[in-house]
Amino acid sequence: MPSYTAPVKDLQFVLHEVLKASASDISGYSELEPDFTAAVLEEAGKICSDVLAPLNAVGDKEGCSLENGVVRVPTGFKEAFDQVREGGWTGLDMPEEYGGQNMPYVLGTAVGEMFSASNQAFTMYQGLTHGAASAILAHGTDAQKETFLPKMVSCEWTGTMNLTEPHCGTDLGLMRTKAEPQDDGSFKLSGQKIFISSGEHEMADNIIHLVLAKIPGGPDGIKGVSLFIVPKFIVNEDGSLGARNGVSCGALEEKMGIHGNSTCVMNYDEATGYLLGTEHKGMRAMFTMMNEARIGVGMQGVAQAEAAYQNAVVYAKDRLQGRDVTGVKNPDGPADPLIVHPDVRRMLMDQKSFVEGARAFILWGSSLIDAAHRANDKDADGLISLMTPVIKGFLTDVGYAMTVEAQQVYGGHGYIEEWGMSQFTRDARIAMIYEGANGVQALDLVGRKLAQDGGKHVMAFFEMIKSYCAEQKDVEGMEPFIEPLKKASKDLQAAGMFFMQNGMKNPNAALAGSTDFMHMMGHVCLGLMWARMARASLDALASSPADAAFYETKLATGRYYMARRLPATALHLARIESGADTVMALSEDQF
Amino acid sequence: MPSYTAPVKDLQFVLHEVLKASASDISGYSELEPDFTAAVLEEAGKICSDVLAPLNAVGDKEGCSLENGVVRVPTGFKEAFDQVREGGWTGLDMPEEYGGQNMPYVLGTAVGEMFSASNQAFTMYQGLTHGAASAILAHGTDAQKETFLPKMVSCEWTGTMNLTEPHCGTDLGLMRTKAEPQDDGSFKLSGQKIFISSGEHEMADNIIHLVLAKIPGGPDGIKGVSLFIVPKFIVNEDGSLGARNGVSCGALEEKMGIHGNSTCVMNYDEATGYLLGTEHKGMRAMFTMMNEARIGVGMQGVAQAEAAYQNAVVYAKDRLQGRDVTGVKNPDGPADPLIVHPDVRRMLMDQKSFVEGARAFILWGSSLIDAAHRANDKDADGLISLMTPVIKGFLTDVGYAMTVEAQQVYGGHGYIEEWGMSQFTRDARIAMIYEGANGVQALDLVGRKLAQDGGKHVMAFFEMIKSYCAEQKDVEGMEPFIEPLKKASKDLQAAGMFFMQNGMKNPNAALAGSTDFMHMMGHVCLGLMWARMARASLDALASSPADAAFYETKLATGRYYMARRLPATALHLARIESGADTVMALSEDQF
Repeated sequence: MPSYTAPVKDLQFVLHEVLKASASDISGYSELEPDFTAAVLEEAGKICSDVLAPLNAVGDKEGCSLENGVVRVPTGFKEAFDQVREGGWTGLDMPEEYGGQNMPYVLGTAVGEMFSASNQAFTMYQGLTHGAASAILAHGTDAQKETFLPKMVSCEWTGTMNLTEPHCGTDLGLMRTKAEPQDDGSFKLSGQKIFISSGEHEMADNIIHLVLAKIPGGPDGIKGVSLFIVPKFIVNEDGSLGARNGVSCGALEEKMGIHGNSTCVMNYDEATGYLLGTEHKGMRAMFTMMNEARIGVGMQGVAQAEAAYQNAVVYAKDRLQGRDVTGVKNPDGPADPLIVHPDVRRMLMDQKSFVEGARAFILWGSSLIDAAHRANDKDADGLISLMTPVIKGFLTDVGYAMTVEAQQVYGGHGYIEEWGMSQFTRDARIAMIYEGANGVQALDLVGRKLAQDGGKHVMAFFEMIKSYCAEQKDVEGMEPFIEPLKKASKDLQAAGMFFMQNGMKNPNAALAGSTDFMHMMGHVCLGLMWARMARASLDALASSPADAAFYETKLATGRYYMARRLPATALHLARIESGADTVMALSEDQF
Repeated sequence: MPSYTAPVKDLQFVLHEVLKASASDISGYSELEPDFTAAVLEEAGKICSDVLAPLNAVGDKEGCSLENGVVRVPTGFKEAFDQVREGGWTGLDMPEEYGGQNMPYVLGTAVGEMFSASNQAFTMYQGLTHGAASAILAHGTDAQKETFLPKMVSCEWTGTMNLTEPHCGTDLGLMRTKAEPQDDGSFKLSGQKIFISSGEHEMADNIIHLVLAKIPGGPDGIKGVSLFIVPKFIVNEDGSLGARNGVSCGALEEKMGIHGNSTCVMNYDEATGYLLGTEHKGMRAMFTMMNEARIGVGMQGVAQAEAAYQNAVVYAKDRLQGRDVTGVKNPDGPADPLIVHPDVRRMLMDQKSFVEGARAFILWGSSLIDAAHRANDKDADGLISLMTPVIKGFLTDVGYAMTVEAQQVYGGHGYIEEWGMSQFTRDARIAMIYEGANGVQALDLVGRKLAQDGGKHVMAFFEMIKSYCAEQKDVEGMEPFIEPLKKASKDLQAAGMFFMQNGMKNPNAALAGSTDFMHMMGHVCLGLMWARMARASLDALASSPADAAFYETKLATGRYYMARRLPATALHLARIESGADTVMALSEDQF
């Protein structure tokens, strides 16, 4: 069975040596001293390694079951959820007035990576609750906040997000769920929602569903969608639980992975709901949480890759098979370990260099979220808005591919469920789909974000790289980082230029290259992260630290990324510059 | 539930318009007239679409079960197997004297694609039998052939291949299964084999296991391995079945996919076995079938991609979501079909251009096998030996990626088992692993095949492309094919040159680029195939055929491959030329 070790030192390295968190003047960052974050991360790491990781395979094997409307979760999940609640892990970045600890989002993300890596299906119960609570925090009335938030921050009550219907996922304007206004100001919701993660279960006293629905008579399409709070049990004025509401789980979906999470068909039959935010502005309310939710999903992709990588390394060192062609490495054994073979190294280095670069990217992105929210930094807000589809789409595409490579290291055993590598792949697959399929992320990036605010944010990003390269180019040891980064950034700018010159006449000329652009930008961001990590490592090495090997490893891993992964930008550029003609050449009936 | 339509017209196009099969003077090819092959393919297509495809999801859901040593296969498999036997599909390319039809291998491959695409887990029962029968045909005594082949060609008896043991897969020299010689010339085999596909089931009267084992006192390692025939039931002299042999299924593996095939742990406890071929030359006997077996697995990767693609197209045309940004396409509906969106097109074109190019590659490769075996063509033999790891490794890597893209077209529904897209992905995953994991294919290509016969075969391949390009470059309409092919071929040659210049000093400099080289070569082969298909299409169009749209579609699909996929060679070259330093930089404990 796979194991999981919390990567505390790597997280600390990014937080303190790369992002220099505690030196930032963002509110709350001064508390992020290395000792403090280390204590938090180690404590979180313990519950992840000791409690959640051992339940990962259990959840996969048992799955959830529905009997008479009651959803049973896998063995051990309820007890583990109690431990997570008791540890105070559910409200790390939530306001203190509702029982949270008001920590910066960046620390919540660092902890979140470990939770996702150790047990993604389990972590979704609290993850969805966090999303729903954030929506209530941002758009609820004071009364709604007081009623729902304390219980949701502690996860005594969990939350869900209800968007998709059988006939509409991405295109929510087609939605049919109706919300009829009642005399008392509440609404009666009727309709069916599908793919509702954590939609029903017995681990919490109440479940607070956030539901998108249309108020009859409102505008057509997406402009007539409103957001509602629909509790499983009506909450009385004194906070006690009243009658069961008209919402129920009609079926559980059988999925490729994340079996431990209950993915429900939810039926709303005149269920009582309360408007959250403004009538017909439901999509806007959802969108305010979109950046965080999408960064969270990007992080899931990386987390699965990290967990899979850790186990691939163990196997590659342990399994004896074949001999090193350059000379026997294990003369006393019947064969050398797999890790001596260059192609096995290639797979491990792909994974390692991706995961570490991606982790820095996500934490940097999270610090931009903090800058936007806690320091009202408009530039940070624009930049993270631009980066969000890249974090979600690129990191989950590549994160998935890395779980496949980790599985490959195991050879035949990678295909056998008992060894657990298949689960990482199957669980990681969902991250490419939910919270906006990756094609939609690419469309958001190229169709919307590039041109946002007159293209200001993408220009700022290019400028940031340019000035970083100028600043670092003469630093000894940075050359293997700066030259490739400049080249990749030039490719990215050329792609942007191609879109500008061709997209006006024919939007498809840009959209046909949208996924390639998203990947290019992801590579450039990881290249920038590796350059920054390299610089931090060089700085650390200058003072001859005791753990020099840690920094040498970082430099070597980064050089791999720059030499082997970053050159992908040229291929993406070539595809983009081939335009839309070959992509759109066929008529529908030619397929 | 997914459906499957046999791609008869596409197969016919490759067989007749590209390969011009019936004009070849390879023995048996003159019978491959278009009407004849069309009849065979259509008949095979019917059983695949009507009988096997509907059982694909059944097999996935039910899997196999083991009770008291008896393995039960999924509902309907036994009846379907009877139909396949009755149809004579099991011995298409086997000799007539053993009940086969003596058709060329190329036709067997064309039919095989359809069987694999419609139900891979099912098709493996006959596929393994075919492999075992081929080994007996090549290495058996006359008595062994007479005893086993007629029943195996008809699949009344099925076969298995037993190589892997718990502690050794790729490195078979570590094998522990023992074969003790008996006075009567037979052997007693004892040991455990794992991952034995179709190892035990009740669909056949007998199961003929081919087992690699060591005769005590023989040479160490791989040079002391012999091959044995171990029947489940001893076959009496009169051909009737005697006592149950000492071989049994100890357990079934739970796998990521191919649930309908019984993957067994096989225990040999003084089981009676008969030497097949020469003592201690078991590996050589296995290797004679390796090319066919690996081409067969490459074909499985393509077949799963084809089946997944077919269903992705149906969904993309059917599902209404969003609007075409260049103008509404379905004004009477609530939204446009997915297929209007450029990024959905990109995914479909990736799949279509891969599958069609790969199909041509496999059939071309199969025709080389025929030339080698039926016409004793040494050049063809050398060329297919070079191509085999590419067909196996490249086509299953990309075939898998294409099933993932097909799944992605479905959005959330792609993750739900009920829709069937997850199964294509899960089933395709094994093809990257078995019959030599793809890293081993890359090693075989770069470490062995490139230098085989003094590099003669790779030089012949380069020369073939060069002269093809020279011959076609001025043909009107060929320019979008020839220029990219020349460029890609130049990249491939540069990579070969890099290996020559650096691999002598340091083998790792070549091996670190082995997977990249395998992919480069795969792209070049598909580029060549597309050029040849384009030329065949241009020729056909010159005579203003009734089905001009078919040829126009081929040309447009090929142009997509050349513009969007083939440029990957430059990235692979860049990775290769970065050498082994970054790949091998870390010591084991730095991982």
